[in-house]
Amino acid sequence: MSDQRIPVAVLGATGNVGQRFVQLLEDHPWFRVAELVASERSAGKTYREATDWRLGARMPESVAGLKVLDYHAELHSPVVFSGLPGEVAGEIEQRLAREGHAVLSNTSTHRMEPDVPLLIPEVNPGHVAAIEAQKANRGWKGYIATNPNCSTIHLVLALKPLQDAFGIEGVLVSTLQAVSGAGYPGVPSLDMIDNVVPYIGGEEEKMQSESQKLLGGYTAVGGFAPASFVLSAHCNRVPVRDGHTECVSIRLGGAPSPDDVIAAFEAFRGRPQELGLPSAPPQPVIVRREPNRPQPSFDRDDAKGMASIVGRVRECPLLGTKFVVLGHNTIRGAAGASILNAELFKVEDLLP
Amino acid sequence: MSDQRIPVAVLGATGNVGQRFVQLLEDHPWFRVAELVASERSAGKTYREATDWRLGARMPESVAGLKVLDYHAELHSPVVFSGLPGEVAGEIEQRLAREGHAVLSNTSTHRMEPDVPLLIPEVNPGHVAAIEAQKANRGWKGYIATNPNCSTIHLVLALKPLQDAFGIEGVLVSTLQAVSGAGYPGVPSLDMIDNVVPYIGGEEEKMQSESQKLLGGYTAVGGFAPASFVLSAHCNRVPVRDGHTECVSIRLGGAPSPDDVIAAFEAFRGRPQELGLPSAPPQPVIVRREPNRPQPSFDRDDAKGMASIVGRVRECPLLGTKFVVLGHNTIRGAAGASILNAELFKVEDLLP
Amino acid sequence: MSDQRIPVAVLGATGNVGQRFVQLLEDHPWFRVAELVASERSAGKTYREATDWRLGARMPESVAGLKVLDYHAELHSPVVFSGLPGEVAGEIEQRLAREGHAVLSNTSTHRMEPDVPLLIPEVNPGHVAAIEAQKANRGWKGYIATNPNCSTIHLVLALKPLQDAFGIEGVLVSTLQAVSGAGYPGVPSLDMIDNVVPYIGGEEEKMQSESQKLLGGYTAVGGFAPASFVLSAHCNRVPVRDGHTECVSIRLGGAPSPDDVIAAFEAFRGRPQELGLPSAPPQPVIVRREPNRPQPSFDRDDAKGMASIVGRVRECPLLGTKFVVLGHNTIRGAAGASILNAELFKVEDLLP
Amino acid sequence: MSDQRIPVAVLGATGNVGQRFVQLLEDHPWFRVAELVASERSAGKTYREATDWRLGARMPESVAGLKVLDYHAELHSPVVFSGLPGEVAGEIEQRLAREGHAVLSNTSTHRMEPDVPLLIPEVNPGHVAAIEAQKANRGWKGYIATNPNCSTIHLVLALKPLQDAFGIEGVLVSTLQAVSGAGYPGVPSLDMIDNVVPYIGGEEEKMQSESQKLLGGYTAVGGFAPASFVLSAHCNRVPVRDGHTECVSIRLGGAPSPDDVIAAFEAFRGRPQELGLPSAPPQPVIVRREPNRPQPSFDRDDAKGMASIVGRVRECPLLGTKFVVLGHNTIRGAAGASILNAELFKVEDLLP
Repeated sequence: MSDQRIPVAVLGATGNVGQRFVQLLEDHPWFRVAELVASERSAGKTYREATDWRLGARMPESVAGLKVLDYHAELHSPVVFSGLPGEVAGEIEQRLAREGHAVLSNTSTHRMEPDVPLLIPEVNPGHVAAIEAQKANRGWKGYIATNPNCSTIHLVLALKPLQDAFGIEGVLVSTLQAVSGAGYPGVPSLDMIDNVVPYIGGEEEKMQSESQKLLGGYTAVGGFAPASFVLSAHCNRVPVRDGHTECVSIRLGGAPSPDDVIAAFEAFRGRPQELGLPSAPPQPVIVRREPNRPQPSFDRDDAKGMASIVGRVRECPLLGTKFVVLGHNTIRGAAGASILNAELFKVEDLLP
Repeated sequence: MSDQRIPVAVLGATGNVGQRFVQLLEDHPWFRVAELVASERSAGKTYREATDWRLGARMPESVAGLKVLDYHAELHSPVVFSGLPGEVAGEIEQRLAREGHAVLSNTSTHRMEPDVPLLIPEVNPGHVAAIEAQKANRGWKGYIATNPNCSTIHLVLALKPLQDAFGIEGVLVSTLQAVSGAGYPGVPSLDMIDNVVPYIGGEEEKMQSESQKLLGGYTAVGGFAPASFVLSAHCNRVPVRDGHTECVSIRLGGAPSPDDVIAAFEAFRGRPQELGLPSAPPQPVIVRREPNRPQPSFDRDDAKGMASIVGRVRECPLLGTKFVVLGHNTIRGAAGASILNAELFKVEDLLP
Repeated sequence: MSDQRIPVAVLGATGNVGQRFVQLLEDHPWFRVAELVASERSAGKTYREATDWRLGARMPESVAGLKVLDYHAELHSPVVFSGLPGEVAGEIEQRLAREGHAVLSNTSTHRMEPDVPLLIPEVNPGHVAAIEAQKANRGWKGYIATNPNCSTIHLVLALKPLQDAFGIEGVLVSTLQAVSGAGYPGVPSLDMIDNVVPYIGGEEEKMQSESQKLLGGYTAVGGFAPASFVLSAHCNRVPVRDGHTECVSIRLGGAPSPDDVIAAFEAFRGRPQELGLPSAPPQPVIVRREPNRPQPSFDRDDAKGMASIVGRVRECPLLGTKFVVLGHNTIRGAAGASILNAELFKVEDLLP
Repeated sequence: MSDQRIPVAVLGATGNVGQRFVQLLEDHPWFRVAELVASERSAGKTYREATDWRLGARMPESVAGLKVLDYHAELHSPVVFSGLPGEVAGEIEQRLAREGHAVLSNTSTHRMEPDVPLLIPEVNPGHVAAIEAQKANRGWKGYIATNPNCSTIHLVLALKPLQDAFGIEGVLVSTLQAVSGAGYPGVPSLDMIDNVVPYIGGEEEKMQSESQKLLGGYTAVGGFAPASFVLSAHCNRVPVRDGHTECVSIRLGGAPSPDDVIAAFEAFRGRPQELGLPSAPPQPVIVRREPNRPQPSFDRDDAKGMASIVGRVRECPLLGTKFVVLGHNTIRGAAGASILNAELFKVEDLLP
């Protein structure tokens, strides 16, 4: 019996995020990896030959024999997942969208454009409406939709229930980010043995602007209206493989107690949970009550890496409420986010 | 020619902080280690036999042959440095102070008591006046003086010039703390390989209360009057041997620019610099201008571990100003702080 | 429908190895965890309350509510898995064996006794015959059977096919061992950040004596006859959570080429593979051909942690052949080894 | 008064080894850094601008303002220290030697050439005689002299006293090597967090061939005659910043006891010690008697990083003797080795 699943392409397939796409799409009920795209260096080789597989002992057999295509190849898959490096993403993603593909991108290039949705299905599913405007504006047959930066997404998943329940007035976040967020080879080991680096280029700015777009509104007439709260970020790199930990202090409306805040986290469900999307975590935000959790080594894989794990909810003497949020940065923080977007698009009948 | 230096005792001499005392006091111009005190397990052995020396390849020869005394031993040194564990410190330190010793303690036990000075010579040298009150209140011949927690001291060294120049309204700090702060064996390696722990018991409370005492006033009549700003801390343990990194957002009076803030840091000098104390760093606060500094592996030993290193001074969209401060947690954060206190006491003629 | 699986007890259930037993036995087709035993400190609490679960985000629900029993409790499970600390194991395991339980122990205490089998089902399944002798000698209703040290077992799994194919004359092994082998809290982080420790107490001796017993013979009359080759080990602790890496140089009979050696590894199958035991890896020894594999982070979970992964098979100018072997130290190196033994015993009708 | 010290140039001055040269040469009694050479990218900038200084908080002030020269610059210093990357070293070093400079190189390029000395002053000072032959053969005014690979040098410093006292028949060594040996950026952190890599390209071959050249003879007529013992190496990369740890098993002549071996290590002195060269360690080989030493974090800086630290000397059941040797890989293992060579050349009147 033939495979009825929708064929998808993965751009940047040999890289860190590309490998995660391939891993997460193995045995996906709706999609199958049909095309793998990478740079000249890899093109023409089989995926097995081209790839230094770094997610466990071995790559899925089903893709190992696929020939890797180059950036200029004509693609036949209606859905294209992109884990391209920022330097090359712009043009390639645009060409594919113009030609009629649904391009679901991890790259920051297009995230803040005024007709490109930056999407977390639990948070702002209504922003998919921007796709129509984008196609019209640009005269494209397909479109680009993006998911947020790996540190933004877990913060915003935790902020959304608080915004809904109390309103957000200001946020201060300090991150302890894993090295896989910088790709491979990425961060040198001489920077990460007995050390932390209190700086990640561009990251603090992204957390600010992306959070406001995600938690803001969208109307066909007015376009995106960023949320009005102020957010300030300190971003740090720490010697952890996977899993970003974020310390959040927040000023909420109505001075809720920690118990109120916990209740809001635990009650939170979004469209993916309503629709029962295959990659949706049962609860988008999981609350830990131990004094010393969440921790990346133990909690990043909870809910298959698709949830945000909150802990240490308590009073902040300065801003009212503080807590820690942790999430897997290459699953829900990257490839898994794009896949969940694609699942939403399928149900909403937005795929080509 | 006989050694004219003041004999000192080190309590808890075999532990992490005790070893640091021994190391820093080698070749000290004013003090010499004459007595070493540790628990039953070590007492009676030579220091070499009793100690698993962990600061480089070998301990100073000058102390290796000293016999370790037990907690009940009568001490002959007028100055006693204490790196005792909190559980046992209280009683022993009190007994020694009662008997006439100047006890300079790293332990948290007595820090917040209403007649015990919690001292950073650059920050609140006037608090030494509490010693008189303490002796009078308690009928002691000697006294206890304390230095702050290892994460508090570097924060407060950075806050002091800002308090003086602008006034402080509120502070939010997230720490990335080294494991040596927890002693040895301390933090298990299974908690620190590919992991961070977003919790250190009691640390957040200490940072809050100690900062307010340090930056507050003292009068003979009214005692200590804590500073009125609000401080909120998130404390994290990270896989770093030495050097606490702290991300600070702060609301200052008069909305100073980052350049104003940098100027205040760089202009700052305190009593130890005026007096030319032997362990005083030339500048208490050193400012780095690179985008990605300070970092513990590179900067913790600057100014022999006695300064606080500030970097990334920039605007905070929420609180006005943000920066990073880093400092060595067992030098200026522990043993070096007590020694600098003792140097101040000597010049101020407060030693027995 | 009632659960027909054999009830088992886990001794030392709250520790590192105990948790691994509980994890691996969840959904086991033949065994179900019925009794959990730990020290006084935990006894009387539920397993959830007593345990700082350290294998992922949460413990299996099926055991969380079980009451933890103390060391003196009467057990009702015919099969008892022991992950007890060496200090207490001896007496408790003996009592339970005397009373009629099959005690499958990870502890080193009884491994080298002349009537206790030290067993790897792929290597020396015939040694189960010692059980009869043991019961007779000791007048016990039950018995003790042991599995090897976590570094020994992966070495011996790799040696067995070489012994069979070529004969072994001498072995030199240097290990790079993970910290989970020392339990929790185990190795202090101050020993493992920017450091290695070239010493593990007793480990080198165990590798030597256990390997010779495992690869030696057993007869009802003569008992155990250790293999005659000489083995020398250098044991090192490195900053890795799980997965022991071992560099092996070996003198084999008949001067086989690396290709001959690889062929022997790949052809190797043992009793568990013949019998299709539920925890048996399809291949006990997996060969990697990349120049830089196996590596613990990527390969330790291959074959669910139950295989030994070999790589870099090449000529040794001194001893003839060299290679690297890696394996998971708390799965095949501890709990998984005991479970595979129990599976063999069930099929061989040796369970009470 | 003018600086009478010999001006020296450093090639590859901005790299890891180049920085170490600059650091070690600050305040050197005989040499002063006069010229700094690096690639196009750095040339024309000051050393401060061109260099991401990674050895502590800040570079020596004395060199910070020097203009960095490019690879083609004419140099005026008679002595040239080279820390060039292998790809570019060959041609540049040859040109400078031809022009009359004494080129002391860390690079592997010329090490094994039949008229280039590979030198450890304690081990084979007589090999300097090859310099005459080299100049004659090649018609050069200057010459190239090399120092060994960072893992070879510490092994050979430990082997030399054993060769002299007992004779060496065979050596098996497994290394645990620090990441600084691979330069910066070098080893990616994703390879070194919770991981080890049992492979370093070309390293095992270098240890074999270099050891034999170093411990072999040289005669004007016959050239180099490699030592005849067999050496086999397993090379591993581990998450350590500095300091290579090596586990050695060795077959010696006459079956010496561990005490005999220790006595040979401790009695060992070489030409640098006789001559009192400024960078010479008082003892080339230091023996530790604790069961768990040496360890990189504690022992690499002993004797200012210029000695090899031996420990765990004991019987090897297979080869007779085993021990651990540790040394600093960028001090005695690289820049410090070249500088000691230059000091020997000065005393031997071999500098231009």
